[in-house]
Amino acid sequence: MDLISFMDLGKEEIERYLEDARKMEEQLKEGKVKKHDGIVATLFFEPSTRTKLSFQSASHRLGLDVIDFSAERSSIKKGESFEDTIRMIDNYADVLVIRHPEEGSAELAAKYAESPVINAGDGSNQHPSQTLLDLYAIKKMKGKIEGLEVHLVGDLKYARVMRPLMYGLAMFGAKVKLASPTGLGMPKEAIEEAKEKYGAEIEETTKIDFSTADVAYVCRVQEERFANKSEAEEAKKGYTIKPGYLEAAKEGMILLHPLPKRDEIPPEVAASPQARYLEQARCGVPVRMAIIKKILEGRK
Amino acid sequence: MDLISFMDLGKEEIERYLEDARKMEEQLKEGKVKKHDGIVATLFFEPSTRTKLSFQSASHRLGLDVIDFSAERSSIKKGESFEDTIRMIDNYADVLVIRHPEEGSAELAAKYAESPVINAGDGSNQHPSQTLLDLYAIKKMKGKIEGLEVHLVGDLKYARVMRPLMYGLAMFGAKVKLASPTGLGMPKEAIEEAKEKYGAEIEETTKIDFSTADVAYVCRVQEERFANKSEAEEAKKGYTIKPGYLEAAKEGMILLHPLPKRDEIPPEVAASPQARYLEQARCGVPVRMAIIKKILEGRK
Amino acid sequence: MDLISFMDLGKEEIERYLEDARKMEEQLKEGKVKKHDGIVATLFFEPSTRTKLSFQSASHRLGLDVIDFSAERSSIKKGESFEDTIRMIDNYADVLVIRHPEEGSAELAAKYAESPVINAGDGSNQHPSQTLLDLYAIKKMKGKIEGLEVHLVGDLKYARVMRPLMYGLAMFGAKVKLASPTGLGMPKEAIEEAKEKYGAEIEETTKIDFSTADVAYVCRVQEERFANKSEAEEAKKGYTIKPGYLEAAKEGMILLHPLPKRDEIPPEVAASPQARYLEQARCGVPVRMAIIKKILEGRK
Repeated sequence: MDLISFMDLGKEEIERYLEDARKMEEQLKEGKVKKHDGIVATLFFEPSTRTKLSFQSASHRLGLDVIDFSAERSSIKKGESFEDTIRMIDNYADVLVIRHPEEGSAELAAKYAESPVINAGDGSNQHPSQTLLDLYAIKKMKGKIEGLEVHLVGDLKYARVMRPLMYGLAMFGAKVKLASPTGLGMPKEAIEEAKEKYGAEIEETTKIDFSTADVAYVCRVQEERFANKSEAEEAKKGYTIKPGYLEAAKEGMILLHPLPKRDEIPPEVAASPQARYLEQARCGVPVRMAIIKKILEGRK
Repeated sequence: MDLISFMDLGKEEIERYLEDARKMEEQLKEGKVKKHDGIVATLFFEPSTRTKLSFQSASHRLGLDVIDFSAERSSIKKGESFEDTIRMIDNYADVLVIRHPEEGSAELAAKYAESPVINAGDGSNQHPSQTLLDLYAIKKMKGKIEGLEVHLVGDLKYARVMRPLMYGLAMFGAKVKLASPTGLGMPKEAIEEAKEKYGAEIEETTKIDFSTADVAYVCRVQEERFANKSEAEEAKKGYTIKPGYLEAAKEGMILLHPLPKRDEIPPEVAASPQARYLEQARCGVPVRMAIIKKILEGRK
Repeated sequence: MDLISFMDLGKEEIERYLEDARKMEEQLKEGKVKKHDGIVATLFFEPSTRTKLSFQSASHRLGLDVIDFSAERSSIKKGESFEDTIRMIDNYADVLVIRHPEEGSAELAAKYAESPVINAGDGSNQHPSQTLLDLYAIKKMKGKIEGLEVHLVGDLKYARVMRPLMYGLAMFGAKVKLASPTGLGMPKEAIEEAKEKYGAEIEETTKIDFSTADVAYVCRVQEERFANKSEAEEAKKGYTIKPGYLEAAKEGMILLHPLPKRDEIPPEVAASPQARYLEQARCGVPVRMAIIKKILEGRK
């Protein structure tokens, strides 16, 4: 009963998560969340304040206690192995939420731990609660996912959120448009797989044009990904969301972002009514509550 | 329903806080505190262990959960804006307690957050829960505030606690004597305002003389405030509380300090029965409980 | 009602702790732990993740809230005295759990604090909850302590755990064999005292030979303890547990370690069925629950 990869989830399971999260949001509003007993451990081997606090808040909302392990202040420095660290914390908690810079680390942790493990980001690989909250936010704000046109914009090669989101959108019948700088495109085999598996319509481009988009999901293009500085500068400039992009966008389009954002969203764009990523982020708590609740119940 | 500045509070409101804190202290003693449901976030953009733990303890005593954000370990490093950070944590908690080195930051946070904000110190500006606990401690130890002579001693220009405390004392009818090194006096307009508004008796001096004092409230003089070292040394020496000062003090005088203290309170003075700042600090929990409780109730 | 040193405990008191821990483990398994009300403060003046999280987990299992103070992020930097820090936190919690690099610090803290203090390690002196959990683990895994032959292996001079463990084993009628490199042996007077007081059989050696051992309790030999490098290397090599040691061991022997471990336990040994230190570590939570519960009840 771990949650390691979005790719492990079937459509029905995802639908149940989205429905459970909806109920959680309702219960939160009414102050009627059922309280549970147990301890959630947040294990962060790299900093990610937003994700950590979101999981901690979700845990507390469910009545659970939290213990926190941050690698900087741990005996990893004294040379303890990853395995021993996981096994140690496994003794102290009922659910482990793990963030780690290396791909595959969450799966490895799940192998060592008897308690269920939730992957809160393993390198550029997976971050399943983020993908679930993205789908939840889109469904909540647009009423559905099927039939929408969703643009994924920015670094589609390295950004952890983009690949599973493309799969999720394809699975639920959205049309996907991928806009990225040359060299930072979505891996071809991922596109092919999503097309084949779900019969999805997926298109690639290097130009941002929101005139047919229902949702624009933007992430940052990092300079470090480019060999030379001028190329990097041009790519960054091209993938900054300009106010004109929004003016030319389809009516009712919403702009999402996994956050934290930087200069890819300039102040004028941040102030526009299309910018809905703060509302999107707010979905993190009920979605993570639904995940923790299901995992705690599956434990028995 | 934020608490940003002591200056925003009316006399009646302050009296209600002091009375609520008294009840809290009673309930703590009897183990009968009513438990609440919710999450308090402590946001510390500069370290202040005492204030943070005091708020966390008050929250737990009320049955609330706590999540903590410390700027050193946050995505502020990754370049996220203050606004985005506040809006993020606003999603995860019901009350935000914020400490920040810059004046005005708490007010700004209150603008961004939907949850109520408590200012736990913004630069050299305000720290309203400290002022309330100081008034509470004085009232508790001396039985009243009206008619007392209170000496405020040390750096009255930069020390955040001193100016609002002078107002509070003036408002409640105490006589205030201000003793500070040359150049570190209370701003003239603050004195004038307190005199006019409350008809208060306020006197200035550069000499410490506790012979008529009911309360001596001391804070540190920092060397960094002086242009040359010899001047700094002299001021520091003059504003160290010598045992002789206490011997010559009015009978029953109490010595208070916002803590942490350093060499301005030498060991002999710390050991004297007049030194009551630990008892004063203990008032922090019930006072902060009263503040959080009122704010949580005002939320609805 | 502090718990500062294992040496302060009588045999009956220790037996009661072991019995209470057994009950706690049972209640944990059945999900029937009685919840308490209160705040535990963990004060760590040096990092020790395992001990800290173990105490925090035990506190939460008992329904208690936790506040944490880590010296690196405290006003100790601003020059506050140890006394003031202890007195401050004493105001905010009902039990203080303190870890400090200096011997005697926990006893000093207990002098300053009104709340009960649990010593979670003071330099190379005492760490009573570790000794209790070691005895509990041995009793649990071997069914008894009396009549067992227990080998204490490694640095017996500086390792905090070893000396009180020897006393505890002697007190409960185990035979103790001490194996350490030359210069890192158990202090003579400690051996003499344990022999006299408990009529214990205690033997010293520099050779590891597990052929008669029921329990081997190993800790690390630190290079820093030696004057020259080659001597250090040889000692380290000699006190690495080789697979052959286990093959030649008495049937049913268990290998324990206070953790974190390093290269003194090579991977083949870690994978052997004799290696039971993870199960040993798991005893930390019920033992610490028993300690905190007793202390909370003694408070009244």
